[in-house]
Amino acid sequence: MKRGIGHYQIGDTFEGFVLIKESTKGTASNGKPFLTLVLRDATGEIEAKLWDITQDDESIFIQEQIIHITGELNQFRGKAQMRINAIRIAQTTDGVQVSDFIEKAPVDREELMEKLTEAIFEMENPTIQRIVRAVVKKYQEPLLLYPAATKNHHEYASGLAHHITSMLKIAKELCELYPQLNQDLLYAGIILHDIGKIKELSGVVSTSYTLQGKLLGHIPMMVEEIGHIAKELKIDGEEVLILQHLVLSHHGKAEWGSPTPPLVREAEILHFIDLIDAKMNMLNRALDKVKPGEFTEKLFAMENRAFYKPTFEE
Amino acid sequence: MKRGIGHYQIGDTFEGFVLIKESTKGTASNGKPFLTLVLRDATGEIEAKLWDITQDDESIFIQEQIIHITGELNQFRGKAQMRINAIRIAQTTDGVQVSDFIEKAPVDREELMEKLTEAIFEMENPTIQRIVRAVVKKYQEPLLLYPAATKNHHEYASGLAHHITSMLKIAKELCELYPQLNQDLLYAGIILHDIGKIKELSGVVSTSYTLQGKLLGHIPMMVEEIGHIAKELKIDGEEVLILQHLVLSHHGKAEWGSPTPPLVREAEILHFIDLIDAKMNMLNRALDKVKPGEFTEKLFAMENRAFYKPTFEE
Amino acid sequence: MKRGIGHYQIGDTFEGFVLIKESTKGTASNGKPFLTLVLRDATGEIEAKLWDITQDDESIFIQEQIIHITGELNQFRGKAQMRINAIRIAQTTDGVQVSDFIEKAPVDREELMEKLTEAIFEMENPTIQRIVRAVVKKYQEPLLLYPAATKNHHEYASGLAHHITSMLKIAKELCELYPQLNQDLLYAGIILHDIGKIKELSGVVSTSYTLQGKLLGHIPMMVEEIGHIAKELKIDGEEVLILQHLVLSHHGKAEWGSPTPPLVREAEILHFIDLIDAKMNMLNRALDKVKPGEFTEKLFAMENRAFYKPTFEE
Amino acid sequence: MKRGIGHYQIGDTFEGFVLIKESTKGTASNGKPFLTLVLRDATGEIEAKLWDITQDDESIFIQEQIIHITGELNQFRGKAQMRINAIRIAQTTDGVQVSDFIEKAPVDREELMEKLTEAIFEMENPTIQRIVRAVVKKYQEPLLLYPAATKNHHEYASGLAHHITSMLKIAKELCELYPQLNQDLLYAGIILHDIGKIKELSGVVSTSYTLQGKLLGHIPMMVEEIGHIAKELKIDGEEVLILQHLVLSHHGKAEWGSPTPPLVREAEILHFIDLIDAKMNMLNRALDKVKPGEFTEKLFAMENRAFYKPTFEE
Amino acid sequence: MKRGIGHYQIGDTFEGFVLIKESTKGTASNGKPFLTLVLRDATGEIEAKLWDITQDDESIFIQEQIIHITGELNQFRGKAQMRINAIRIAQTTDGVQVSDFIEKAPVDREELMEKLTEAIFEMENPTIQRIVRAVVKKYQEPLLLYPAATKNHHEYASGLAHHITSMLKIAKELCELYPQLNQDLLYAGIILHDIGKIKELSGVVSTSYTLQGKLLGHIPMMVEEIGHIAKELKIDGEEVLILQHLVLSHHGKAEWGSPTPPLVREAEILHFIDLIDAKMNMLNRALDKVKPGEFTEKLFAMENRAFYKPTFEE
Amino acid sequence: MKRGIGHYQIGDTFEGFVLIKESTKGTASNGKPFLTLVLRDATGEIEAKLWDITQDDESIFIQEQIIHITGELNQFRGKAQMRINAIRIAQTTDGVQVSDFIEKAPVDREELMEKLTEAIFEMENPTIQRIVRAVVKKYQEPLLLYPAATKNHHEYASGLAHHITSMLKIAKELCELYPQLNQDLLYAGIILHDIGKIKELSGVVSTSYTLQGKLLGHIPMMVEEIGHIAKELKIDGEEVLILQHLVLSHHGKAEWGSPTPPLVREAEILHFIDLIDAKMNMLNRALDKVKPGEFTEKLFAMENRAFYKPTFEE
Repeated sequence: MKRGIGHYQIGDTFEGFVLIKESTKGTASNGKPFLTLVLRDATGEIEAKLWDITQDDESIFIQEQIIHITGELNQFRGKAQMRINAIRIAQTTDGVQVSDFIEKAPVDREELMEKLTEAIFEMENPTIQRIVRAVVKKYQEPLLLYPAATKNHHEYASGLAHHITSMLKIAKELCELYPQLNQDLLYAGIILHDIGKIKELSGVVSTSYTLQGKLLGHIPMMVEEIGHIAKELKIDGEEVLILQHLVLSHHGKAEWGSPTPPLVREAEILHFIDLIDAKMNMLNRALDKVKPGEFTEKLFAMENRAFYKPTFEE
Repeated sequence: MKRGIGHYQIGDTFEGFVLIKESTKGTASNGKPFLTLVLRDATGEIEAKLWDITQDDESIFIQEQIIHITGELNQFRGKAQMRINAIRIAQTTDGVQVSDFIEKAPVDREELMEKLTEAIFEMENPTIQRIVRAVVKKYQEPLLLYPAATKNHHEYASGLAHHITSMLKIAKELCELYPQLNQDLLYAGIILHDIGKIKELSGVVSTSYTLQGKLLGHIPMMVEEIGHIAKELKIDGEEVLILQHLVLSHHGKAEWGSPTPPLVREAEILHFIDLIDAKMNMLNRALDKVKPGEFTEKLFAMENRAFYKPTFEE
Repeated sequence: MKRGIGHYQIGDTFEGFVLIKESTKGTASNGKPFLTLVLRDATGEIEAKLWDITQDDESIFIQEQIIHITGELNQFRGKAQMRINAIRIAQTTDGVQVSDFIEKAPVDREELMEKLTEAIFEMENPTIQRIVRAVVKKYQEPLLLYPAATKNHHEYASGLAHHITSMLKIAKELCELYPQLNQDLLYAGIILHDIGKIKELSGVVSTSYTLQGKLLGHIPMMVEEIGHIAKELKIDGEEVLILQHLVLSHHGKAEWGSPTPPLVREAEILHFIDLIDAKMNMLNRALDKVKPGEFTEKLFAMENRAFYKPTFEE
Repeated sequence: MKRGIGHYQIGDTFEGFVLIKESTKGTASNGKPFLTLVLRDATGEIEAKLWDITQDDESIFIQEQIIHITGELNQFRGKAQMRINAIRIAQTTDGVQVSDFIEKAPVDREELMEKLTEAIFEMENPTIQRIVRAVVKKYQEPLLLYPAATKNHHEYASGLAHHITSMLKIAKELCELYPQLNQDLLYAGIILHDIGKIKELSGVVSTSYTLQGKLLGHIPMMVEEIGHIAKELKIDGEEVLILQHLVLSHHGKAEWGSPTPPLVREAEILHFIDLIDAKMNMLNRALDKVKPGEFTEKLFAMENRAFYKPTFEE
Repeated sequence: MKRGIGHYQIGDTFEGFVLIKESTKGTASNGKPFLTLVLRDATGEIEAKLWDITQDDESIFIQEQIIHITGELNQFRGKAQMRINAIRIAQTTDGVQVSDFIEKAPVDREELMEKLTEAIFEMENPTIQRIVRAVVKKYQEPLLLYPAATKNHHEYASGLAHHITSMLKIAKELCELYPQLNQDLLYAGIILHDIGKIKELSGVVSTSYTLQGKLLGHIPMMVEEIGHIAKELKIDGEEVLILQHLVLSHHGKAEWGSPTPPLVREAEILHFIDLIDAKMNMLNRALDKVKPGEFTEKLFAMENRAFYKPTFEE
Repeated sequence: MKRGIGHYQIGDTFEGFVLIKESTKGTASNGKPFLTLVLRDATGEIEAKLWDITQDDESIFIQEQIIHITGELNQFRGKAQMRINAIRIAQTTDGVQVSDFIEKAPVDREELMEKLTEAIFEMENPTIQRIVRAVVKKYQEPLLLYPAATKNHHEYASGLAHHITSMLKIAKELCELYPQLNQDLLYAGIILHDIGKIKELSGVVSTSYTLQGKLLGHIPMMVEEIGHIAKELKIDGEEVLILQHLVLSHHGKAEWGSPTPPLVREAEILHFIDLIDAKMNMLNRALDKVKPGEFTEKLFAMENRAFYKPTFEE
């Protein structure tokens, strides 16, 4: 049996439990109402149409409901779409729960927390260490739960912490290769850079942007947060300013959301480590779905490129 | 007698007191040391060369020293340059002081403060009013002293407050014409939008950027400051978020330093009022220096355009 | 009862008279012909599908026909669409006429004309006054009838004159605040700047671009027109050139349709007044449709931004 | 003997008559006045410094004065500069006149006029023919005298007519290769496209931009002119509109000064013929100055590229 | 009778043979499968829907199958779409074959080859001639068969050779007008510039990109090919380098695929000749389909412009 | 004693041996000839003026001559400039040679070669290994000698090999962190990506661009070279194409010189590793010259940013 909806292809028949991610009512060309459902499990998602619905159907097949479904995968305007043969609400006796249908980081939370703790522990500059520790303590729970984005890369449970720990690993090696890098600063920048996403995003299921996420964005919010925490800890050395700068500049240029570009060595490198880990995450997941000799689908967040997997890859 | 260095032209002989704004040593082609002086008074500035200097000269003619000078204005590479005939240090008995040589806003501080107070007084939303009042109180002194920029527009003493009060006047009229505008929000946005410059700039004489000005910029610093003040005042309604958004977005687009563009009606209008007042300030001062039928010099901050004064202007 | 189609929402049932703005025949997936109708009244427009049509239907439900309709508003691909329950042609006895279904400026024509006359009357430069008066006299009727655009802003009957008079109001205040502005020039620029739209657009119902509108555009046509009128009036002072420049440069940069950028003070300010009034018109109408705490739909002409109405707005 | 100043190189000694194109006074580092002269003849131009000048020198060595000069060519900041050994004003007996020192098209005026007349004669559409004939008649004298630009390409006496006739030759061949092209339209567009330069430029000696050239530009002025002439001839067919469109769109895009891009086949081709002839003119003159195996200087108007002349060119 | 599918319009009924270019299965809103067919003949292509298909239909109506079809042309989302009335597979007895349905250059292969041979024959530089002759000999067959692109311009059988020979004709005339041009180089550049397309494209029916076309592109592949052939011929003069440069730079700038811009006179001109011929090919075919007084559809490869055919064109 | 010219500052007096990198003759304002010398040693370079030179001086103080010099460092237009007190040609007895004055990689050639050999040895795909080994063998000598650029980064002897080996180190770690990466491909891409510089650059002293460097560039030349070597080795698997793609795409986008963007996972990562190592090289060398609390000079190749060294750096 296949592992999940993300592994089915055009022509396959799917049978199993899925979560309704979105449900929208429409009117068909014959004048009858229907539902467009976006269905997901931990491996991917697919659109499906439920035709000729009753008012009951409308009130039952709603967002975040788990259902059991049977259907065929067809192609519609170049995308897969499921034609539903049978559908029913999941029962308590089915033993399924919402968290089963959400993609998770490939590393568990304890391990992620351990890696964060270890990085903080290695810091030698006490000011930097105190600030980072206070931030991680304050946001520990969501930090281990949140995705790093609503889509594109690390958009799964614990994605944020997974992204941070991968970046820490790259940083460790670069600090060895380039001893001029200040490891404390780089580690701190990596841990702090995206924590503002916890205020920017709504959560881990059906993730969307919060009002403050839309009106301010995670970067200025995190700059402010570092200021508040430094105030509370009564710290005001140049370290505070530099950490704020690292967060502020980590998107690299104004057009990408950093009103000040990196002006400190570690800020520049932080930006590149962030890019590499985000891109590897997108590339690996897209290439995982294709066979040697094939191209991936076009990846929007990578300038719409389709990537090729050479035939000599196993 | 002419009113100041800014009103002299190529071919004129200048005699009077000026402030040394910058002093740099160089070596002439005959191998002898010389000083390049940038001289200023309240009306403008000019470059001058002091040839064949002694070690004494070097230690006397330094930045922020007032001097009495006689010289002729020549053209050098398309710019005016003074050829010094006589130069001496100002004496106490000359009765001149540094503040005499700094350009000032055409409106005095009391009047500026009064206009600010009046705008705050007119606010009806108590939350907005409290935040604005607290910011103005905290920064009152520098707010009335600082320029709005190091160059281009309102780059004179009290320039910041002058800029704000001119903008308030435009806002008042727009609120009348478009009653849908929330006057409290627009006034508050105008008063707060550039106060971060007080942290970004070094002061009013020989203004330069501070370290935090370079690494963070006035916009994120002011967003943070509003957060701090709201915390101190124990305010956390949506007003705080909207005021932060107004400040954050007032440069209009990411490329111009606003990571989030205006997404609230008053934010959009704030951006345009800011542009109009800055441009009028530049244009009026540049056109003031030319006669009808002439073009101004090229204005760097206005896409390097040279503006024309029609012959039918009086 | 609701005021018009623009105020109905998904789920509502509409009943009333509307104008057919567009009617296009298609073939449904069951092989039968249908009509896609765009329906409008003075408050807005909506798409509707008329299924299983006869040849009669096709010849009756045509562009600019008024109909009485009953139907439900559903969502289709993220936009509202009406499902028609009943439809019939309006009768003479219904007492409705095409002009009832066209959006109009909120100010009537007499008042608009009065404001224009007053602005011309205030002019002191006789050359400028004569040219403006001649243009307004020549185009008086369409000037009071035309929209200012086919979409985005002031796209309603008398929109052009409404746009001009709002701009004159802003100009009046700016001239007071900045006495250096030449009021005659600025008023003249405002009145003339978009009159070329009368040649560029086809009229006020189902507005489209004329051939000369597409091949030349309103800006070069109006520059030429000023030249013709000055010739007829036997005027050739610098005023003619400056007025042509104001019209030519009012879009601000080459990319936006002004081959020469503003090079006269009033030209620069004209550009900004034009922007402010266009943006306020779009923003007010979009925000009018949402409740506090909501975002507007994405506004294409404002870089696709969705604007937020704060919860503390009444 | 060498043919003119444009053919001398670093290290050469020049002796001969030249025209003073510009003369600017400066002050040397020893405090003495000097003149910076830009000297030209029909083959090129060079900068020279005249040190330690008297007041007499200043009033004698002025713009458009012919002088006899001896000097050495040195390098200064990467450009050639003449070190003057001897200088004197030209006498009547020297038999030299200003027009000797101005570069001219390699084809004489009679031939240029003949080619223009022939192209007009070949036109079959009487409306197009009448308009073009009227324009050429009205501007015949300056059309045969003016350069096509102040610099970069065809910036010599009769440059405008030379540019037009070269373009006509290319057009003739393209019309043969692509019989779909309307030869009348293309010829007319070529003849009219740059005639606005006659109003835009000041003349053929020390060419600069006129006020209307700066505030309107040759394109909108020529669009207007076609309108005036059509009015006078009482012509108003679609031909007038299309000819105006050809002129308006001939720079190809808004960023390059055409608010409307080419939307008629001949307009598109006109733009490319214009580009080819301008580029060939620049390239040929730059490559003419270098030997096989060398690069030209950087050509500003060709994106600052330096072009290579292959060694196998003779 | 009309000449082919490209000449039918909305409302017409078509009857005749066509080739299935693409066939895609979908599911209709009534749950039944259907095929979306793209049908073509030598004059154009159209989309058609085949509703309620059987499994047999699916296996019969496949890509590259010739069919006989009757149907009506309707409008669907602004594009023509055929509503199929009758459809059947072509029989051997119908006497039709795939090559009948592919658009061809308006000049036959013998004539194209003759023109190529003649151009090579005219070359005087033996090195250039040997390289070009070797390339043409190696690729002669596909060179006469391939299109010049998958869409936009010369996208028909022999399009590549047709494009080359048209360009040679323009080049001949330009070399006459501008004798400074090296005709050998220009001819060689024209013949070689797009031959890499033979490796980049899959062939002449259902043309797509090859793997090396996607990963390298025709320009670097052709640069390499010239190197290989020069090696085989044991040639290594500067001519090889210059020919490689001509191919490498013929797209004009980095953004358009030429990492080095044209730096040799003939390279610059090659780029413009390429543009003119591609544009004329697109324009002529688009304008051929409309009547005087109409606009063409929007041409994607020409910045989405719709071109106008003047009413005074016959 | 200080370590070299790169460590002297304004006000210091320098005495020692340097190499003349460039020597240009000029004429001073007193009419006398002088030389502008660019002097360098292994630590940096400086400009110096030699006034009132004789003809002998001119023929002695030429490019690549070693001299002994005494002088003072002054500031001239914001850059350091040496005022020469004494100057003489180096003698054989001075025991200095050109290679002493050229900056070298901080790692010696044997070690660099060893690291390259090791990387090749680790490869498992025999095709990739054979190609890389052949290239390295063919270019071994210059590969260990050449800089990686004429300026900006790794612009010193063995800079190319130093850049490659640093990149290999980063790659090794990334392959461990992201096991999906094909290490053979990534190593091969790193070793090959810049070897075309050996043809593009003139050598290690006074490095400039070769003719083929200017007309083709290192990227297309290396793509071709891989093709030649694969031909010689009679290899034509997909590996050749992928290696060519890695080299072709390593600048990341068309605007930066890669006509095809990275479309293979390792190509994308190669681009980022290249950027990181180049940036670290520039940053470390620039920050090395400033003290904590200072900004570096503006770095042209890093968007003209000046970087800050925090005060808490030791």
